[in-house]
Amino acid sequence: MSKPSLARGTRDFGPEIMVKRNFIFDQIKIVYQKFGFLPIETPAIENLSVLMGKYGEEGDQLLFKILNSGDFAKDLKENDLEIGSKEILKKVAEKGLKYDLTVPFARFVVMNRHLLTMPFKRYQIQPVWRADKPQKGRYREFYQCDADVVGTESLICEAEIVAMLYEVFENLHIKNFVIKINNRKILTGITESIDAAGKESDLCVAIDKLDKIGKEKVEIELLEKGFTQKNIENLQTLFNLPHDQKQLFAALKNWLAGSEEGLKGVYELESVWNLVENLGISISKIAFDPSLARGLSYYTGAIFEVKALDVSIGSIAGGGRYDNLTGTFGMPGVSGVGISLGVDRIFDVMQELNLFPEQLSVIGTKILITNFGEKSLPISLEVLSFLRNNGIKAEIYPENSKMKKQFEYADKKNIPFVLVIGEEEIKIQKFNLKNMLSGEQTLLSKEQLIAQLHV
Amino acid sequence: MSKPSLARGTRDFGPEIMVKRNFIFDQIKIVYQKFGFLPIETPAIENLSVLMGKYGEEGDQLLFKILNSGDFAKDLKENDLEIGSKEILKKVAEKGLKYDLTVPFARFVVMNRHLLTMPFKRYQIQPVWRADKPQKGRYREFYQCDADVVGTESLICEAEIVAMLYEVFENLHIKNFVIKINNRKILTGITESIDAAGKESDLCVAIDKLDKIGKEKVEIELLEKGFTQKNIENLQTLFNLPHDQKQLFAALKNWLAGSEEGLKGVYELESVWNLVENLGISISKIAFDPSLARGLSYYTGAIFEVKALDVSIGSIAGGGRYDNLTGTFGMPGVSGVGISLGVDRIFDVMQELNLFPEQLSVIGTKILITNFGEKSLPISLEVLSFLRNNGIKAEIYPENSKMKKQFEYADKKNIPFVLVIGEEEIKIQKFNLKNMLSGEQTLLSKEQLIAQLHV
Repeated sequence: MSKPSLARGTRDFGPEIMVKRNFIFDQIKIVYQKFGFLPIETPAIENLSVLMGKYGEEGDQLLFKILNSGDFAKDLKENDLEIGSKEILKKVAEKGLKYDLTVPFARFVVMNRHLLTMPFKRYQIQPVWRADKPQKGRYREFYQCDADVVGTESLICEAEIVAMLYEVFENLHIKNFVIKINNRKILTGITESIDAAGKESDLCVAIDKLDKIGKEKVEIELLEKGFTQKNIENLQTLFNLPHDQKQLFAALKNWLAGSEEGLKGVYELESVWNLVENLGISISKIAFDPSLARGLSYYTGAIFEVKALDVSIGSIAGGGRYDNLTGTFGMPGVSGVGISLGVDRIFDVMQELNLFPEQLSVIGTKILITNFGEKSLPISLEVLSFLRNNGIKAEIYPENSKMKKQFEYADKKNIPFVLVIGEEEIKIQKFNLKNMLSGEQTLLSKEQLIAQLHV
Repeated sequence: MSKPSLARGTRDFGPEIMVKRNFIFDQIKIVYQKFGFLPIETPAIENLSVLMGKYGEEGDQLLFKILNSGDFAKDLKENDLEIGSKEILKKVAEKGLKYDLTVPFARFVVMNRHLLTMPFKRYQIQPVWRADKPQKGRYREFYQCDADVVGTESLICEAEIVAMLYEVFENLHIKNFVIKINNRKILTGITESIDAAGKESDLCVAIDKLDKIGKEKVEIELLEKGFTQKNIENLQTLFNLPHDQKQLFAALKNWLAGSEEGLKGVYELESVWNLVENLGISISKIAFDPSLARGLSYYTGAIFEVKALDVSIGSIAGGGRYDNLTGTFGMPGVSGVGISLGVDRIFDVMQELNLFPEQLSVIGTKILITNFGEKSLPISLEVLSFLRNNGIKAEIYPENSKMKKQFEYADKKNIPFVLVIGEEEIKIQKFNLKNMLSGEQTLLSKEQLIAQLHV
């Protein structure tokens, strides 16, 4: 006998949670489809050659690796033990679990390049796995909901991503959110303009803390990271950027005038703002955030992040443009841009703000038929099939238990109606329908029953 | 640069396949829900302590094991290498990928015993993993669609499973199938009646081949397996069982009169037949098959298997009753019965018999708006949002490419309508709608467009 337990950082989802999660998935799918994205799925298991080296050294560490089947240790030598896990890994594991949906998607695009119509728009809703230290809100197995367009550099795609985010969160009744946007080229431009080229990463980490620790402490951190006093003087413009959109873009152009890359970034940013307005969307929930970097891993243009306000939950969506992702699989020149929604975080936001629709509480069966044993069973089963054939979710209590127990079952499962079919009812061919909420009871024929339940 | 490849025995699903698979999933879900089953999900990753020993020795071999994170080899000693993989496994892997949905469900039930309302009916649609040798129609990662009831021994559940199978396959237009039913107790009864108690497994393997190799060869195999000539003489009744249902049950009762367990099995079988008829279902597609065993692993009562006729594809569903599954996790006395549908096989059957509905060929966008560049873009994007806000799946071609290319895109993606918005159209505020199938073109206002597309 083994004591049952969940693997660390994983979760079961019972019916109540599933219904709420499916509500979120469905709303996302509806929007993705409305914008012309088509579904694909890739396997959970990928060859490690596909995954390794795509997420930085830390990412490689966080990949779950799968032991080769059969006698996996047959090639291990004493010498391997001395070198350690890294050497042994190469000999015992060729496969791993996918870490995100973007890299497998890039693999899919490259392997299906001759079949796909470009630009290719796909969405993908699947679990991913990361061997992170589990903590509140961070799991080792969690779902991502991605939409990406590859095969075009058009900034319309960036604007459409913003439009999709608006529509998804509107449909989920998450009203208070901000879509932070940055552009990798602007980050490059800033480092060039302050004479600190190549230090985007350190710069981001520091200025990301501006809200929390204030300007002075940010400057101290920059000095510690090797930025000069002169660098920091040049950076002052960043702390004083205007909030008004037009002034903002003008100020950026002025500041980054010496960096071709930086100006290109500002132009891209401005274009996205204009295209979003063309799509009829208020830009009030979009904010330029020069500290946004999201790891900088493979982004080359726009960088997105969505934060829900009113709650202290991290970002609920993130994404950006990448120019070189299929290049790592031998297919250069395919630019892509995408967004990934974090269902677990969105769930937490909706739970905390009580945003799930009321009707999700009745999640299953609409009517339970009581079981009075063998004599009434044939009629009960006949009525049961009649109800189901009329599209009503119905079940019969499987055992001839006490009425109290059968009603308790309906109550606990939140089943709104119970139909009592006993000897008396069979005689008169009318059945006793009890409304579990109001307590009201009505004698109804089969046909009347359908009419009543379809209301 | 790494050459992209799929891990052996795994598959990508592109949009056309996804839409067809989702059609199957949806039909199954609708029926499961109509019968009062609620959805749950369990993680892909389970502790090996939960999985090992539940599927026999072969099953243990076929489990995918996950390497522990971090410095997994730090406890390995030279001595371990000498003992080999089995010893090393214990030190380097604590987790694995789930092998089916039933054992994780049993774990779920035990861990949530105080929260669940019994009898508990759940369905679960998720991938499972087996390190089998990949071959045509057999994958290492594939979906199962399970429905189980636990917490009752009522045979109504068996009858409802039959009813669900009828409805699922009817909805999928798979008309020609047979539901084979056996009962583990009858198998036991037969071995007792022929004086070969305990040899159910060998008996099944042999008589399973009756159709293929004929009675004589089956008897030779039984002799080889250690059955005596006397055993085989006693077994003759099996080869001459009547087809008529009433006669069949009478013959079985007569034959197995000496085995209490066997008679109980016949009684159960007969009850299921009657309950199925009570549910208004023709029993013409149900067949008693005494050779059906499905590995015998954890089944204790009914055993089900569904075969599609007209095609040479193996079983498309299987299941049965198990009395001891939660017992292995320390919770005895919970009887359950369930069915598992094999979506990959069902897909193959539907593909081969051309059963997917026509309308699944238009899987995404309903209308593509052309892109004539900057001048017309604001109006094009406005119309795009207008269409989407009216619930129409719409997209704009993201680049200002040649018209031919844009139309080709619509054609390849099977988009039924293209809307041309050029300078002329903007002047008169009417847009040119082209029906890609008929070639017909119509000038329409925005409002007329909606009316046209909603038809």
